[in-house]
Amino acid sequence: MDRTARRTESRYGNRPTMKDVAARAGVGLKTVSRVVNGEPGVTPDTERRVQEAIAALGFRRNDSARVLRKGRTASIGLVLEDLADPFYGPLSRAVEEVARAHGALLINGSSAEDPEREQELVLALCARRVDGLVVIPAGDDHRYLEPEIAAGVATVFVDRPAGRIDADVVLSDSFGGARDGVAHLIAGGHRRIGFIGDQPRIHTAAERLRGYRAAMEDAGIPVADRWMSLGVTDPERVRRAAEEMLTGPDPVTAIFAGNNRVTVTVIRVLAEQRRSVALVGFDDIELGDLLSPGVTVVAQDAAQLGRTAAERLFRQLDGATLLPERIELPTRLIRRGSGELPPAD
Amino acid sequence: MDRTARRTESRYGNRPTMKDVAARAGVGLKTVSRVVNGEPGVTPDTERRVQEAIAALGFRRNDSARVLRKGRTASIGLVLEDLADPFYGPLSRAVEEVARAHGALLINGSSAEDPEREQELVLALCARRVDGLVVIPAGDDHRYLEPEIAAGVATVFVDRPAGRIDADVVLSDSFGGARDGVAHLIAGGHRRIGFIGDQPRIHTAAERLRGYRAAMEDAGIPVADRWMSLGVTDPERVRRAAEEMLTGPDPVTAIFAGNNRVTVTVIRVLAEQRRSVALVGFDDIELGDLLSPGVTVVAQDAAQLGRTAAERLFRQLDGATLLPERIELPTRLIRRGSGELPPAD
Repeated sequence: MDRTARRTESRYGNRPTMKDVAARAGVGLKTVSRVVNGEPGVTPDTERRVQEAIAALGFRRNDSARVLRKGRTASIGLVLEDLADPFYGPLSRAVEEVARAHGALLINGSSAEDPEREQELVLALCARRVDGLVVIPAGDDHRYLEPEIAAGVATVFVDRPAGRIDADVVLSDSFGGARDGVAHLIAGGHRRIGFIGDQPRIHTAAERLRGYRAAMEDAGIPVADRWMSLGVTDPERVRRAAEEMLTGPDPVTAIFAGNNRVTVTVIRVLAEQRRSVALVGFDDIELGDLLSPGVTVVAQDAAQLGRTAAERLFRQLDGATLLPERIELPTRLIRRGSGELPPAD
Repeated sequence: MDRTARRTESRYGNRPTMKDVAARAGVGLKTVSRVVNGEPGVTPDTERRVQEAIAALGFRRNDSARVLRKGRTASIGLVLEDLADPFYGPLSRAVEEVARAHGALLINGSSAEDPEREQELVLALCARRVDGLVVIPAGDDHRYLEPEIAAGVATVFVDRPAGRIDADVVLSDSFGGARDGVAHLIAGGHRRIGFIGDQPRIHTAAERLRGYRAAMEDAGIPVADRWMSLGVTDPERVRRAAEEMLTGPDPVTAIFAGNNRVTVTVIRVLAEQRRSVALVGFDDIELGDLLSPGVTVVAQDAAQLGRTAAERLFRQLDGATLLPERIELPTRLIRRGSGELPPAD
């Protein structure tokens, strides 16, 4: 890993240009351009000289905007954090549709929520000549991307912000969405409300917890530590967390689930309870409206996140000079029954 | 597209070896190996000569097994047909886990069910030096892959077979699963049973229709044309198909849904019906057990499909000499209520 990173960095540090290639091969710039772009009008011998100069200098074409405009097989990369999370399905497809509309291929990979793997994957995609990257980051330090960005790789972060670099970011309003969802439970008469979320180092999890705390504080409700549980979202951990909140002293009468992976497990736990417990989940879930009760959710527009990020990426690739921007999309509370159940006591 | 394919083919047709590079550069094979593998012990001048020979010959390292064994950043590609279909989530993650266990990165892409795009993506991944490919094919002619396979790119098809080439294939038993699911409805007293499936050119859709027909024929039930509807699985088309079967003369009392995308829409349509209509769906769906009634399904093991395909791929990459094999995984009927509803008339 470190070795790859260093090697990539040094290759970019002193990036050779087409002019360098022309000088070394003893040909004009137009000839290099023809070879690089696979255009006719170059003798085999000249082409070989240019190719040798390209190899000797380690030249890598990366003037992405031009490549795209010519309609060649350009490509962009998408770095997810979990291939099996249905939230990323519509997001990925939206990125793909924008890429296709721009004549570019989309190549994906997953960090599996591992910052080292994210870096490895990002650099591997850069080494494979993607013109730009849409990144759902797992890590919180993206300085490793600086040489790539300097070398012209367009970059947009989505769902979670970049760490320690200036970059375009497209997010949902996790804080506001969670605050509204919890306030909705409070308005329904609940005071003992649990929060089950993803690992606290994940930006969206931290923001949603902050939203929960803000709603409780706004209502003057003191929060017990045992009402908050953050950690991995596998079913066993979430089940244990929910069961602990539902038993013992001061059991919760409502649960706010921090994302769709948490929600599906909490639905299962609540289906086994004798008393009715209210539930609001962050993220919509498929068929959530057909369950009994229907699942009240704070919905994000996953497709719109992907579309916005990809369109921003292609604006960068089209050569627009843009200052890094943070775009925050609103969430939407959808009432379906589970969030409108009154407190059982 | 054609241009890319042709260019790739000619590059592979007469594939240069390390020996060719050594001869051209006037160095020993070991020296070429050192340069190719980034090992020390080569002077800058010699390295440049080797690099120039590599460029001149168009040499591309592809002795994948060795690369993998050395623990370098090897990679494999996965070609999906739909980024947003939840069926591919566990399959993709299983491929990724096997790749990681072998020290390889996984790079994905989607054909969006377009054969041309599949070919474009496969060749783009090969050009980006993946060691092997797991392909869920959209097309039915994969001869374009022959030069890549000859050049050492390991290839396994999954979920659907390869067309017009010999290749490893890992499938679920679509025919047997559908036949069993429909036979289950017949055993429950149904005779007017509808089948709604994906486009007939898709192998799994055709096989499942064949299973439906076989079960009906085994029971001596003549099938009306209007009970069978194949086409794209978008909600509008599926809804129309279901509503047509449920109204008019000889309305169906049960529906067999050909995949999970069809099932979720049929569930919605049936929830709006006054009479109860039985349903068996191919593929399990999340929370299907918590709906009312629970959804009876013919479940495939998507993760096992992915794992089997990826493990087969790495056996190829490890240098095992294998004859192309067709591996078929069994399906499992899970009774949850919707498939056990009796005929309404």
